[in-house]
Amino acid sequence: MTEKTALTPKTHTAPPAAFSHGVRKGNILQVAGQVGFLPTEEGRPPTPAGPTLREQTLQTLANVRAILQEGGASWDDVMMIRVYLTDVGHFAEMNEIYNAYFAEQGLTQPPAARTTVYVGLPAGLLIEIDALAVLG
Amino acid sequence: MTEKTALTPKTHTAPPAAFSHGVRKGNILQVAGQVGFLPTEEGRPPTPAGPTLREQTLQTLANVRAILQEGGASWDDVMMIRVYLTDVGHFAEMNEIYNAYFAEQGLTQPPAARTTVYVGLPAGLLIEIDALAVLG
Amino acid sequence: MTEKTALTPKTHTAPPAAFSHGVRKGNILQVAGQVGFLPTEEGRPPTPAGPTLREQTLQTLANVRAILQEGGASWDDVMMIRVYLTDVGHFAEMNEIYNAYFAEQGLTQPPAARTTVYVGLPAGLLIEIDALAVLG
Repeated sequence: MTEKTALTPKTHTAPPAAFSHGVRKGNILQVAGQVGFLPTEEGRPPTPAGPTLREQTLQTLANVRAILQEGGASWDDVMMIRVYLTDVGHFAEMNEIYNAYFAEQGLTQPPAARTTVYVGLPAGLLIEIDALAVLG
Repeated sequence: MTEKTALTPKTHTAPPAAFSHGVRKGNILQVAGQVGFLPTEEGRPPTPAGPTLREQTLQTLANVRAILQEGGASWDDVMMIRVYLTDVGHFAEMNEIYNAYFAEQGLTQPPAARTTVYVGLPAGLLIEIDALAVLG
Repeated sequence: MTEKTALTPKTHTAPPAAFSHGVRKGNILQVAGQVGFLPTEEGRPPTPAGPTLREQTLQTLANVRAILQEGGASWDDVMMIRVYLTDVGHFAEMNEIYNAYFAEQGLTQPPAARTTVYVGLPAGLLIEIDALAVLG
């Protein structure tokens, strides 16, 4: 039997329920929905990187990336990125930030597929992202 | 060619369209979005387990589990659970129910990753859940 | 290392950001969120097939199918279809269109699993669909 491994970067706050920030089993790696929380600090509750879409998007992408790395993967392995925004008016700005971010990641493979939809999120959070990767 | 098998527990109402409650192909098993409908009864339309988040969450999880089992899988094989709620105010209570439920499932592997977002659902439904599993 | 291939049908408008319309790696194929845009024409901005749910649903399904085909897959390989609608009142009509569409596709395997939720989409768009396929 192939083991399922929990991926828990040291930077990450404890999940608020019985789920893993990421799991890997064989060559499949799934990243849970990440938001723009700063790296965890003892005694501080989960804290967004800032109130702006830019701050939260970049922190969210960093949080996804940390989980990929914890599982031995990189953005090159990612097949699907799901972006949840709260406001249709944020789409253009998110794309700008997204494009600039990935331009700096040095991808050697085509970018992942993506779906963006507009949903409700907890107060103060503007973006949530999860990802599916296939390694190897 | 690997066969794709439809997973249709006897307890489940017929899907309202041309989709399968679950499918398995090779070691990949996908569970369709489940809601809190009670086990089907001849002549009764699809009926939620009750009006409360607790009733619907537990029934929804039971419905997901029935499909996993029909495909030879268990919660241990689940990589990703997508939770759709209608109300951000339900997050804490859903987590309590979720945690208590999984504490009783006797997992021997780390819990699945999870994304929770807030969307619209048909009237009377408070939660929908789907799941991706990797077997073996 | 298995190559990740971008799937870009000639009919498709350029993605509005650094993502692929579809990717395939090994036997996994992921289709990005598709909407009801007509086949691209030089000098014309992305244009929905029409204002109605029927027009947009059929065009969206055609757009998903084009990506599957570009990756050597067919509807028979699809494990999961995610349908995003903007209006709960569209569910019954979407199912009718969906059922009629798939009745004509000549599936030789069980239909994919599906989740339908109600979200916000950019103005004028009534439906978005993405899909996960397992080939072979």
